[in-house]
Amino acid sequence: MKGRPTLFSSGVLIDDMDSRKRGFFITFEGPDGSGKSTQFKLLAESLKQSGLKVVETREPGGHPLAEKIRLLLLANRGTPPAAETELLLFLAARAQHVRALIQPALTKRYIVLCERFADSTYAYQVGGRGLSPRFVTVANRFATNGIKPDLTLLFDINVTKGLRRAFRAKQGHDRMESEPLIFARRVRQAYLEIACREPRRVCRIQADRPVKSIAREVWNEVWNRLQSTKRDVQFPRSKERGIGYDR
Amino acid sequence: MKGRPTLFSSGVLIDDMDSRKRGFFITFEGPDGSGKSTQFKLLAESLKQSGLKVVETREPGGHPLAEKIRLLLLANRGTPPAAETELLLFLAARAQHVRALIQPALTKRYIVLCERFADSTYAYQVGGRGLSPRFVTVANRFATNGIKPDLTLLFDINVTKGLRRAFRAKQGHDRMESEPLIFARRVRQAYLEIACREPRRVCRIQADRPVKSIAREVWNEVWNRLQSTKRDVQFPRSKERGIGYDR
Repeated sequence: MKGRPTLFSSGVLIDDMDSRKRGFFITFEGPDGSGKSTQFKLLAESLKQSGLKVVETREPGGHPLAEKIRLLLLANRGTPPAAETELLLFLAARAQHVRALIQPALTKRYIVLCERFADSTYAYQVGGRGLSPRFVTVANRFATNGIKPDLTLLFDINVTKGLRRAFRAKQGHDRMESEPLIFARRVRQAYLEIACREPRRVCRIQADRPVKSIAREVWNEVWNRLQSTKRDVQFPRSKERGIGYDR
Repeated sequence: MKGRPTLFSSGVLIDDMDSRKRGFFITFEGPDGSGKSTQFKLLAESLKQSGLKVVETREPGGHPLAEKIRLLLLANRGTPPAAETELLLFLAARAQHVRALIQPALTKRYIVLCERFADSTYAYQVGGRGLSPRFVTVANRFATNGIKPDLTLLFDINVTKGLRRAFRAKQGHDRMESEPLIFARRVRQAYLEIACREPRRVCRIQADRPVKSIAREVWNEVWNRLQSTKRDVQFPRSKERGIGYDR
């Protein structure tokens, strides 16, 4: 099967060069308040409207056991867990999510959209909490079974603006969002370092713009990647047809 | 403070060479059915009767968050978690347990008795499940914050006998105990390898003997270690006084 193209139900050809990854894996990264959830929904809608098989998921979570771990992580009561405990819980949830959902979906040639993935752990636990980058890298590789996103959309926003938007969005907020400004700055810095290190995988998107304009950029980026990564892609009739925000 | 002996309430002098470890850390290892829980209780009782400050704990667990993780791990319903998820959950529980209970107790010069610790993870997840020994070693070091037991009592028993005793002990049994014989053999092998690698720390105890006889051996071992590790130990009036099983 190696190297032989396989056919999407919609007519998109995907080259299964890697037996574990025959679909296309897109992650959404960035701080809370960067608007990534909105863009996530718009892209998912656009892809589905184009007849593509899409799996929408998020971290921590995406599997019953991983969702239980999510509840432990985001609980805002009692003493917060140690930074090391927090890291290992995120990784445990990821290990289950990858093996029970992401890998099988990619094998079935789905396009998998995931809100937050391994880069979040690096940005928050290394950048934010100051844990060992070396250990987090090794442990992320173990948890993900070596699976990397084909494309990561990094929604980048000025730290103060992002925090303001995040607080405005909900009155009650979970523990991860009650961290101070300096933490948010370190997280952003770590995200930008990842983008510098892996410019081919990570697409940095200026998130401080109108929703429609960002959605157009996201759609173009995904369209181009799908076309350039896989040869002989027969994408939906019109490039414009998939744009979710003006149908 | 370094190198200066500190005094137990009972008059036992403990040398605080390591600022994180001023008490004495004893772990109980071995398969289910090896009788380690019985010996754990007897030793704890003996030490307390001798006027020593003892903390009794267990893994996974020993802290409210770690106990919640324990519930996730030992649940016998639904699809079992992936081996990698299981490992990371054990490590998350350990990270919390070490930082919230074990380290503070050792700093306060308690004798900490813990049923199962890092060696269990190595024996079950590397020996039993076949995960990477290198990753488990590195991740164990991360989770334990580098803390190693001063003494590990390894209760070794013939695999078939151990399984029979474990099944007889309870009608319902949790998921970890429903693994087959071949798994138990690999776990035992991994335990014995640890004992070979670290003969000073790990004391192998032949567990297929009468309770009283094992308790005497355990007490002698602990007594000798406390005396030989720390100089100027003023132990309770009589060596025999602490033996829990014939008071």
